[in-house]
Amino acid sequence: MKLQNDLFLRAARGEQIERYPVWLMRQAGRILPEYRAVRAKLSGFKELVETPEFAAEVTIQPVDLLGVDAAIIFSDILVVPEAMGLTYQMIEQKGPWFERTIRSREQMNFIDRNIDVQDRLSYVLEAIRLTKKELAGRVPLIGFAGAPWTILCYMVEGKGSKTFSESRKLLYTQPELAHELLQEITNVTIAYLKAQVEAGADALQLFDSWAGILGDEQYEAFGIHYIRQIAEAIPGIPFTVFSKGAITSLPKLASLPCTTIGLDWNMSMDVARTLVKESKTLQGNLDPCVLYGSDELIENETRKLLKSFKSQRHIVNLGHGVYPDIDPEKVKVFINTVKSYEI
Amino acid sequence: MKLQNDLFLRAARGEQIERYPVWLMRQAGRILPEYRAVRAKLSGFKELVETPEFAAEVTIQPVDLLGVDAAIIFSDILVVPEAMGLTYQMIEQKGPWFERTIRSREQMNFIDRNIDVQDRLSYVLEAIRLTKKELAGRVPLIGFAGAPWTILCYMVEGKGSKTFSESRKLLYTQPELAHELLQEITNVTIAYLKAQVEAGADALQLFDSWAGILGDEQYEAFGIHYIRQIAEAIPGIPFTVFSKGAITSLPKLASLPCTTIGLDWNMSMDVARTLVKESKTLQGNLDPCVLYGSDELIENETRKLLKSFKSQRHIVNLGHGVYPDIDPEKVKVFINTVKSYEI
Repeated sequence: MKLQNDLFLRAARGEQIERYPVWLMRQAGRILPEYRAVRAKLSGFKELVETPEFAAEVTIQPVDLLGVDAAIIFSDILVVPEAMGLTYQMIEQKGPWFERTIRSREQMNFIDRNIDVQDRLSYVLEAIRLTKKELAGRVPLIGFAGAPWTILCYMVEGKGSKTFSESRKLLYTQPELAHELLQEITNVTIAYLKAQVEAGADALQLFDSWAGILGDEQYEAFGIHYIRQIAEAIPGIPFTVFSKGAITSLPKLASLPCTTIGLDWNMSMDVARTLVKESKTLQGNLDPCVLYGSDELIENETRKLLKSFKSQRHIVNLGHGVYPDIDPEKVKVFINTVKSYEI
Repeated sequence: MKLQNDLFLRAARGEQIERYPVWLMRQAGRILPEYRAVRAKLSGFKELVETPEFAAEVTIQPVDLLGVDAAIIFSDILVVPEAMGLTYQMIEQKGPWFERTIRSREQMNFIDRNIDVQDRLSYVLEAIRLTKKELAGRVPLIGFAGAPWTILCYMVEGKGSKTFSESRKLLYTQPELAHELLQEITNVTIAYLKAQVEAGADALQLFDSWAGILGDEQYEAFGIHYIRQIAEAIPGIPFTVFSKGAITSLPKLASLPCTTIGLDWNMSMDVARTLVKESKTLQGNLDPCVLYGSDELIENETRKLLKSFKSQRHIVNLGHGVYPDIDPEKVKVFINTVKSYEI
């Protein structure tokens, strides 16, 4: 089906656009009362992720309610470790928790190898098919996965952390084990993202939330190396790499065979463009806290961001997921400011 | 009293040194069994901070036991907000917690203005005097405080956070209030650090743990602006600014009237030196996770760091506080590798 609004895809590919496309990380979620109404009917976050009808419903909500230029499938990066054999719980106010972690050669046996993603992640793929049908070509649908380094962080640490020191310890003490685990995650992620494209995803994004805790050399070896394998395996589709906090790795990220680099809010757009050059589209990066401000402040800060763009190779987004206590009306001010800005 | 080992001070000032000085952030603390023995006698962390005899004892332990080239007074950056009227609790396994927070004009009344640091922070100053006496000139003693932005983060958020979104929200919604609070913190911090020098501190360090969550412009306005006031008010003493995660602000930090810039472990030494030039000493920045490795790995990684130095303007440290479960014997391998390295 031909898309009625393909701005996001054209901006990603560096093609001509009439205006900048805009969407928000975590747009399908806690900020919308309509989302909370769906969520309230269910036992918890995981039931929502695992029920295609509900996942599709909340994926489409921000398209209807906020007017974004792309939808992103409602899911979680932790479905991959779970598919590989490590089940997790999502504990309210605390975050994810894994009963089993991988810190030794023996614990690698917890991992199921050569899994069938069509089977184990069928619920995500079905949610994508349903969403595509219900979107009826209004906007593109973005599929996603966690980058291997970030997935390893959760598999090793077993929960969120400020420093992920157990994961970083593994890189020094058992680098071969770390590489083996990263390769397993990479293999599953490639199969999973290919399946998402087959199911109807128009674009893909890799989230490397913990990129910034590694130095350049380690991030090259344990992070970018595997992202490159994934990007190379899935050519020809708009592909965004969002390596949070990895500003000094931007020149290396710019050499990846992807179309788009995501920027977090504390990266300067000027510096990022200088480092990345014109070979990539940049996605981001308004500080999510701007949306706590007055309408005037939001308009001013958004325009300041837009004016900093030197070319059409931009997709507008926040520099991080939208915070849960943001008023959806403020999100609309942001979106409408982008939409009314003349290139 | 003349110092027997003033390597740290000479390296900070850019004077000739025979070898690189080395110490560790959080060297006085949980890694040492001798520290835990002192701690076990007391009701909690705060009793240790507030009892000069014990604070002096644990400050000196790493000089005796590990052979570091500098001592740093055992204390906490949160003694400043407490002196200003916001008491905190240190909750085991969770971190600091403030009953009262500053998020509005009315709540500014919680702050005591024009406080006498000699009175309210006498326990830290007495700990410094005692430590100086007991050190008997063996190594320099470093005094410290939190940078105003980081202290504001705790005063506004009331506890630790990954994003400190309440604090960042304040910068957008009530910038005048943020500046007023930052100025109050700055005034107290200047008086406090001057008092530390009078009490015997040979050098000072400002910890800006949450620098990296702000973009460049905001960090300039709400962070560096106040650090500059502090550094200007206390000239002529080795002064380190450690702005964690603020790699893109390094050129601005390099223009501060301080002697030394602290680097965290994910900043490349080469990039940092290029940005900072030769006008400052760089302190850091071995990944604290290296100390989980074998002796051989620690020696190799430490030598790799040392070989990356292009001049004598370096003080060796970790890129973050030493992690609590590190074996002190591993710390000694790190320290001895630095000490035996020929410049």
